Amino acid sequence: MGKADDKLFVGVDLGGTNISAGACDVKNKLIAREKKKTKAEEGGPAVIDRIVKTIQEALAIGGLKLGDIGGVGIGAPGAVDINKGTVINAVNLRWKDFPLAAALKEKLKVPVTLDNDVNVGTWGEHVAGAAKDFDDLLGIFVGTGIGGGLILGGKLFHGHYFTAGEIGHTILFSDAPRGLRTLENRASRTAVVNQLKQLILSNHASEVPKLVDGNLDEIRSSVLAKAIKDGDELTIEVVKQSARYVGIAIANTITMLSLPCAVVGGGAMEALGDPYLKWIRQSFEEHVFPEKLRSAKILQSSLGDDAGVVGAAHLARLRLS
Amino acid sequence: MGKADDKLFVGVDLGGTNISAGACDVKNKLIAREKKKTKAEEGGPAVIDRIVKTIQEALAIGGLKLGDIGGVGIGAPGAVDINKGTVINAVNLRWKDFPLAAALKEKLKVPVTLDNDVNVGTWGEHVAGAAKDFDDLLGIFVGTGIGGGLILGGKLFHGHYFTAGEIGHTILFSDAPRGLRTLENRASRTAVVNQLKQLILSNHASEVPKLVDGNLDEIRSSVLAKAIKDGDELTIEVVKQSARYVGIAIANTITMLSLPCAVVGGGAMEALGDPYLKWIRQSFEEHVFPEKLRSAKILQSSLGDDAGVVGAAHLARLRLS
Repeated sequence: MGKADDKLFVGVDLGGTNISAGACDVKNKLIAREKKKTKAEEGGPAVIDRIVKTIQEALAIGGLKLGDIGGVGIGAPGAVDINKGTVINAVNLRWKDFPLAAALKEKLKVPVTLDNDVNVGTWGEHVAGAAKDFDDLLGIFVGTGIGGGLILGGKLFHGHYFTAGEIGHTILFSDAPRGLRTLENRASRTAVVNQLKQLILSNHASEVPKLVDGNLDEIRSSVLAKAIKDGDELTIEVVKQSARYVGIAIANTITMLSLPCAVVGGGAMEALGDPYLKWIRQSFEEHVFPEKLRSAKILQSSLGDDAGVVGAAHLARLRLS
Repeated sequence: MGKADDKLFVGVDLGGTNISAGACDVKNKLIAREKKKTKAEEGGPAVIDRIVKTIQEALAIGGLKLGDIGGVGIGAPGAVDINKGTVINAVNLRWKDFPLAAALKEKLKVPVTLDNDVNVGTWGEHVAGAAKDFDDLLGIFVGTGIGGGLILGGKLFHGHYFTAGEIGHTILFSDAPRGLRTLENRASRTAVVNQLKQLILSNHASEVPKLVDGNLDEIRSSVLAKAIKDGDELTIEVVKQSARYVGIAIANTITMLSLPCAVVGGGAMEALGDPYLKWIRQSFEEHVFPEKLRSAKILQSSLGDDAGVVGAAHLARLRLS
């Protein structure tokens, strides 16, 4: 240990839209960070170059160089093979069996470890965030889509095919047509915005059109948050519905795994804050079984946007020290 | 080991209706077994006496005595505390915080270990039944109700409050009224029979009334099986629906945990056989995510009614040797 404890480790959160990178110390403190566009459309090698550049610039901001770091942890979207360090399939990056860890290692000349983006976010909340006190928990992240990660017995649970945690794809509406059956179909920010648009276009009263100067393609989470704060009934109804479904999916998972805790994060959660969490909790308590499990803690992510970077850096420290 | 390997262990499957007990050898072979009514309405001490009698008679059938056995494993319905050996809450036995293991141990003067009835059934299929090749699996049992058990990493997964596996209580119809939301509400034998009754009473054509001589309260799983074999369209429709929902619940669990296997057992599964399993599989494949998981094995229980006894005996061998 000794020496390794002094080292910094870099965490990278690779998304379809953005790359975030940061260096963390042994106390999971984020020393320096940087963010760039992913530009997935430019292809794998270009994305690798941008990841390398993001890491280098983050280090430069902190007055650090590659020699100061013990390794890099990276969270990538989609299914990843953590043993081989490959991205098995990431639709939004257009990657199939892509050797991400090896490609980064070749460029950086430091060890690299890989996991799923939502898993590293959940891990961040477990080691340094809202779920520090829990060894068994569900992480659920609500944004454009909905992803989940599981920690069981203090370890990330990957399952047989490395895809565990795909809560957004669980079915909550068994008799609905394809495309309207899953949690993600009904409760993601994408779903909420589409429902709200549709209702506004069919002449339901709302202050949202005014908030976006009539351009309904500009409805972001921040707009939803403002409308809720102003008491806009249409927005409240639609967002409450999303929270209800998220609460049911959390209840289903906690019912199946008898977990003491779930952490809710992601762009929509961050923007919508307390009312959203309150509605999720109400729905969870209504639907979980048995009654005793109502005492499970439903917490908001405390690291927010940094959960992935902090979690990836910690995983790197754990696996590469 | 040596000596302990020669010992027999007794497994008990305690249900709301029946008590089954049997002695198993080191190869999980059932040497002798006996079955009695539970008569839960006579109260805890009477049930204990009947369990003891069932065990004694099973042993007598095999020409055995208590001195030949290393211990007793018992699966009880509801939430159980496996460390304390207590039944926390079993609605159909009317037990709350009932010290089942201690009460049995006092009567039998041999060590006793306790687990949930569905868990021991799942464990039986894992150590000696259809799921012998799998260390990670869901067991799901369809009968009057629907129960589930999870084995992760070759161990029974109990969760934080010992209630893991309650798949019957997961929500598959988020917008349905209370009482019609869960898997159990829609797919248990109770639900199937009620739906069928209702359809028959509203004059839908079916051969079922003829099969039960006009007494619709006599619709058992065997009647459903016969009607399906005869091509009765109404019965096929209702049972197929049940299979569809069971398939969705299995898909949700395998999506969340990335499992390679699920075993389906219980009275309804035993009676309905191949067509039911085929419909469950079809639904599972339609609903699981990602596509790769369609290759997970959906198997029928091979121990049938003995799964609980064999599993409980093996758990006793494991914990008490």
